[in-house]
Amino acid sequence: MASGTYVEDDFQRDTDYIEDRITRDGAGDREWPVEPNRYRLVAARACPWANRAIIVRRLLGLEDALGMGLCGPTHDERSWTFDLDPGGVDPVLGIERLREAYLARFPDYPKGITVPAVVDVPTGRVVTNDFAQMTLDLSTEWTAHHRDGAPDLYPEPLRDEIDEVNAWVYADVNNGVYRCGFAGKQASYERSYRRLFGALDRLEKRLTDRRFLVGDTITEADVRLFTTLVRFDAVYHGHFKANRNKLSEMPALWGYARDLFQTPGFGDTVDFAQIKAHYYVVHKDINPTGIVPAGPDLAGWLTPHHREQLGGRPFGEGTAPSAPPADELVPQEGRAA
Amino acid sequence: MASGTYVEDDFQRDTDYIEDRITRDGAGDREWPVEPNRYRLVAARACPWANRAIIVRRLLGLEDALGMGLCGPTHDERSWTFDLDPGGVDPVLGIERLREAYLARFPDYPKGITVPAVVDVPTGRVVTNDFAQMTLDLSTEWTAHHRDGAPDLYPEPLRDEIDEVNAWVYADVNNGVYRCGFAGKQASYERSYRRLFGALDRLEKRLTDRRFLVGDTITEADVRLFTTLVRFDAVYHGHFKANRNKLSEMPALWGYARDLFQTPGFGDTVDFAQIKAHYYVVHKDINPTGIVPAGPDLAGWLTPHHREQLGGRPFGEGTAPSAPPADELVPQEGRAA
Repeated sequence: MASGTYVEDDFQRDTDYIEDRITRDGAGDREWPVEPNRYRLVAARACPWANRAIIVRRLLGLEDALGMGLCGPTHDERSWTFDLDPGGVDPVLGIERLREAYLARFPDYPKGITVPAVVDVPTGRVVTNDFAQMTLDLSTEWTAHHRDGAPDLYPEPLRDEIDEVNAWVYADVNNGVYRCGFAGKQASYERSYRRLFGALDRLEKRLTDRRFLVGDTITEADVRLFTTLVRFDAVYHGHFKANRNKLSEMPALWGYARDLFQTPGFGDTVDFAQIKAHYYVVHKDINPTGIVPAGPDLAGWLTPHHREQLGGRPFGEGTAPSAPPADELVPQEGRAA
Repeated sequence: MASGTYVEDDFQRDTDYIEDRITRDGAGDREWPVEPNRYRLVAARACPWANRAIIVRRLLGLEDALGMGLCGPTHDERSWTFDLDPGGVDPVLGIERLREAYLARFPDYPKGITVPAVVDVPTGRVVTNDFAQMTLDLSTEWTAHHRDGAPDLYPEPLRDEIDEVNAWVYADVNNGVYRCGFAGKQASYERSYRRLFGALDRLEKRLTDRRFLVGDTITEADVRLFTTLVRFDAVYHGHFKANRNKLSEMPALWGYARDLFQTPGFGDTVDFAQIKAHYYVVHKDINPTGIVPAGPDLAGWLTPHHREQLGGRPFGEGTAPSAPPADELVPQEGRAA
C-alpha cells in the first residue's frame, strides 16, 4: 500500500481515505453499526498498516465477531488479490480482487486499492479503508465483543498523549520510511532520512527507561510503532535506504521491539517471508530484478530482551490473548525461527 | 568495473585481461621492463580491484617511481573518465577517458574498460589491466624502487598459502559479492549468498585467534580481503543484498578490518563517498533512482579494535609508510570521520 503522489520530489501519501466508521450504534452520518459476523476485515500480513488491524483484532479477541480475509504479499498495479485462498477467491466475499469490493461501493473509485479495508459482507461493499480510525474504533466501539481480559489500548486518560506520539511517529517513522524509499531526488531522500533517524533517536531515548511508549501498558501507540520496527531491518534498512544503522544497533528500541514481538498478539501476526516478498517484488521501480534478499538473520527476534526489568504491565488489568486460531497461524517459512 | 556475462543466471566475471607484465628486465614475451617514471597507474578509489593497487603502491612507497591517475567514481557505459582532474583531462596522459589508452593499444578493443590499468606514458598505450598479477609484480619486480622499510607483501615461504587463500577469497568473497548483486535469478542469488557467508564464517573463525590472514604480518592476502570488507556495510550489504548480517556484526572480521583500516596505507586510500557514488549511480539496473544512501554511520571504523593483543607485526622487519603526498589525500567528505 503506497498510494501517493509527489510534491517537490517528496512522496506524499494519499490520505484521502473512505472515512466511514463502524460505531456502537451507527447513528451518525456515514456511520455503520457494530454487528458481529456482518463485516470482514481484509488485510495482508505484508502491509504495516494492515498489520496494525491484525494485531488489534488479536489483542482484543475479535476473531469471532469480525472475520478476516488475507491477501497475498504480491499484487499487480490494480489490486491486492486473494491468491492465498483456494481457487484464488476469498471464501466469504467470493471475490478474487479486493478491487471488486471497492468498485461495489464506488463504481468509479479513482484511488489506490489499499489494505486494511472493512467490507460489509451482505452487500460486498467496502465500508472503510481509514486505517488510523479503524483500530481506534475496534478498541472503543466494538467493546461489546471484546474477549474477557482484553486490554484497553486507548485508555481515556492517555488519549492526548497517545495521539501526540502517534502524530510524529506517523510522520517521521511509519510514513517516514516510505518517504526515504520513494524519494524522487537525493535532497528529498536526505531530508526524510534525517527526520527518520532524528525520530528514532528520540524514541531510543524515550524507551531507555520506560517499557512502553505511553503509560505502563501496551497501547495503540505501541501497535503503530511496532509494525514499522518489525519491518525495519528486513526491508526498510536496505530497500528504502534507511541505513544509518539497523534497528538491532539501537539497544532500547531493539529491546522494545523484541519485547513486543515476543508478546502474544504481536510477533504471531508477523510473516517475514510475506513482508520481504511484498516490498522487493511489488516495487519494481526500486528493485527491478525482483530478487528478494535472503537476509537478515532473524534469530535475534527471539533472544531475551530483559525489558521486564523496567516494570510495566503489558496487558494492564487484562490478560494476554491465547494462541491464534489454527487457520490464522503464520506459516513456518514466515516465522523468525 | 563489472565486465562480465551470464551463464545459467550466474554472473561470470570477464577474466580475459590484457596479461602483459612489467618485470625486472622485461625480457619475456609480452613483458615490459620496470622503469621509474615511465608508466602510469590508472585507478579509481571507488573500485575494489583498483584499490588493491593503490594500497600496495602506498605500502611499498612506489609513489615516486609510478605515478597515479585517478578516475572519478561514476562513468557511462563506455569508460571510466578523468572527470576529477582540471579540464577533465589526466595531466600526464592528456586523455579524458581511459578508453583512449585501451584503443591506443588495441584499436578494436572489444571488452570492458577496467581499472586498475597501467599505461605506458610515452606511447599512451595500456600495458596491462590484469589486476591480480599487477600487485604481485609491484611487490616482486619493482623492488629496486621500494621505499626503505617496505614490507614484503608476498614472502617466498608463504606464497603457496597466500595463493590458496586468495583463490577462495576471490571466488566466494571478492567476486562473491558481485555474484550476489548481479544474480539474474533468485536461485542464483541464493547460491552466491550461501557461498559468500560460508566463506565469511570461515574467515571469522580463522581470524579469531590470528591477527592477519597468512603469517604474522600484512600480506597480499590481507590487501585483497580488505578492499571487499571496507565496502561491505557501505555498499554490498544493501545494494548487492549481501545482508545476512553487516560486517560490523562479525566480531573478528570487524576487528580485523578496523585494524587494517587504521594501518597507514589502507584506510588512507579509502574514499567512502566515491565508493557509494560509484555503485549506486553506475548500476542503474539495480538502483534505477540513482539515489545514494546517506548511511551507514562510518564512525565505527575509527574505534579501538584491540587486535594488537593477538600479536603480529604488521610490517614485519619493515616500517609503516608515511602519510600520503598532499595531492593524493582522500578529500574530507570521503573519510570515515
